Amino acid sequence: MDSNEIRIFSPATIANVSCGFDVLGLALDAVGDEMIIRKTSKKGITITKLTGQDLPTETLHNVAGVAGLALLAESEYMGGFEIEIYKKIKAGSGIGSSAASSAGAVWAMNALLDYPFSNLELVKFAMEGERLASGVAHADNVAPALFGGFTLVRSYHPLDIIKIPTPEALYATVIHPQIEVKTSDSRRILKTSISLEDGIKQWGNVGGLIAGLYTNDYELIGRSLVDHIVEPIRSILIPGFDKVKENALEAGALGCGISGSGPSIFALSKGEENARLVADAMKNVYQKIGVDYDVHISKINTEGIKII
Amino acid sequence: MDSNEIRIFSPATIANVSCGFDVLGLALDAVGDEMIIRKTSKKGITITKLTGQDLPTETLHNVAGVAGLALLAESEYMGGFEIEIYKKIKAGSGIGSSAASSAGAVWAMNALLDYPFSNLELVKFAMEGERLASGVAHADNVAPALFGGFTLVRSYHPLDIIKIPTPEALYATVIHPQIEVKTSDSRRILKTSISLEDGIKQWGNVGGLIAGLYTNDYELIGRSLVDHIVEPIRSILIPGFDKVKENALEAGALGCGISGSGPSIFALSKGEENARLVADAMKNVYQKIGVDYDVHISKINTEGIKII
Repeated sequence: MDSNEIRIFSPATIANVSCGFDVLGLALDAVGDEMIIRKTSKKGITITKLTGQDLPTETLHNVAGVAGLALLAESEYMGGFEIEIYKKIKAGSGIGSSAASSAGAVWAMNALLDYPFSNLELVKFAMEGERLASGVAHADNVAPALFGGFTLVRSYHPLDIIKIPTPEALYATVIHPQIEVKTSDSRRILKTSISLEDGIKQWGNVGGLIAGLYTNDYELIGRSLVDHIVEPIRSILIPGFDKVKENALEAGALGCGISGSGPSIFALSKGEENARLVADAMKNVYQKIGVDYDVHISKINTEGIKII
Repeated sequence: MDSNEIRIFSPATIANVSCGFDVLGLALDAVGDEMIIRKTSKKGITITKLTGQDLPTETLHNVAGVAGLALLAESEYMGGFEIEIYKKIKAGSGIGSSAASSAGAVWAMNALLDYPFSNLELVKFAMEGERLASGVAHADNVAPALFGGFTLVRSYHPLDIIKIPTPEALYATVIHPQIEVKTSDSRRILKTSISLEDGIKQWGNVGGLIAGLYTNDYELIGRSLVDHIVEPIRSILIPGFDKVKENALEAGALGCGISGSGPSIFALSKGEENARLVADAMKNVYQKIGVDYDVHISKINTEGIKII
């Protein structure tokens, strides 16, 4: 990488893909932040610009700043970086807004330094941004942003991330109802224990989903997109969830669930045409109950973060 | 199928493959029952011979008899079958002895009737044999016997079974210490609830194991062969378990766990040579503590039941 400055696209991501609570995520194509990252002789990280969302720009209070510092701490590079962040992903929407900034920053720095770090190492740095954002250094949004496609966080100790292939015609529809669900509430209502019976169903479905992704078996992917554990509890916090899901499935979606910890709801479809039908079916619910919303229709982004 | 009689090999199977409790099973090559099944004009099922184990031969008390009746009940065939069973798999050893008889019977009948039923339907019939044997109509032994290789029971309602590919060099070592563990005890000591945290680890590993099997990634298979939920409890019933596992892993096994509900212990290896080293390492434990044992070293059987 010759340049001292790059402009990147860092995608929105869906974590907690149905049965894959805390382990399965995927990257989107149609929505993401843009960032400009620039090498400077001055040490450290400076957030020189942040538009689109009202977020802190002090390095230690900004997720990109904290993730960048984690990278610098492991790097031999003696200079620093300036970061401009053009947020397109709404904070708190449940599609990995903080992850896009954290992962984008470290990915771009790694590119500017001529790739001293592996993707797995970048995930670890970006997780420090997640720790700042939510108190938990989770990997299920930053991993798909960095690896692209579907990622499985097999284990945290040690961190082990597997990139899973994406069938060509797979599309996601995401609807974001403009209501606030606090991540802390969404975490707190989860039970700390589950029945063995539900656990067995869940890991059966995770197995089926992974198998479906490897074999381009859209029907199997659809049958496996079931969450017996988290969705029944968390969906209570999302007005209209049951109806949105019902409409999406009636419109032909392979499956439908909560994106991250909500309030966004995602559906997967075979083909863009179906994803559009599903979007209309989902919108319909919030139009009727008078809740504002954003909708994104996106191919699964198998590349992850990229230079633009 | 022109003949009125066939002789088959019906393999032993490993259920509850580590993280895949109740959902993942695999078929063995080196050990299995032999059976002769013959069409008769007389209706119903008759067990005409049973050698190798002391098991009931009355149709309604024999797992092959019950499974066969379940098939006949759905068949247009107006005659019946005679069955000879040459048991090579010890009952209660934890490698699918009852499943081999149940699955073998219905597989052979289906062949003699020129294949009116799908493998999935055969699993349902064979599950009736399992219900007789253990009180629970489980599918995780009969499925790999019928499909071959690794099978995932994604769901029971409706029954959904996925055949997972088997890496070419994958071998299993099974050691059966000659101690009695009652399946009922082995079920009873399980807790009916688990922590969400352990559940997440388990489905992360199921995802990793399936991914490893699709990509021939032996290291990933090994890292994923971990059971945080059932093994810590059930292994208490198997004398020497911890030492057997330690020895197997030290000898280079990819992973090691309880076969079915025990007392057999299985290990997976890359290559036959390693499987032999692992067998020696496992035997060593029971030689020292003076417990008799059988050992089987087997390629994974990707074909399942076959005519011999």
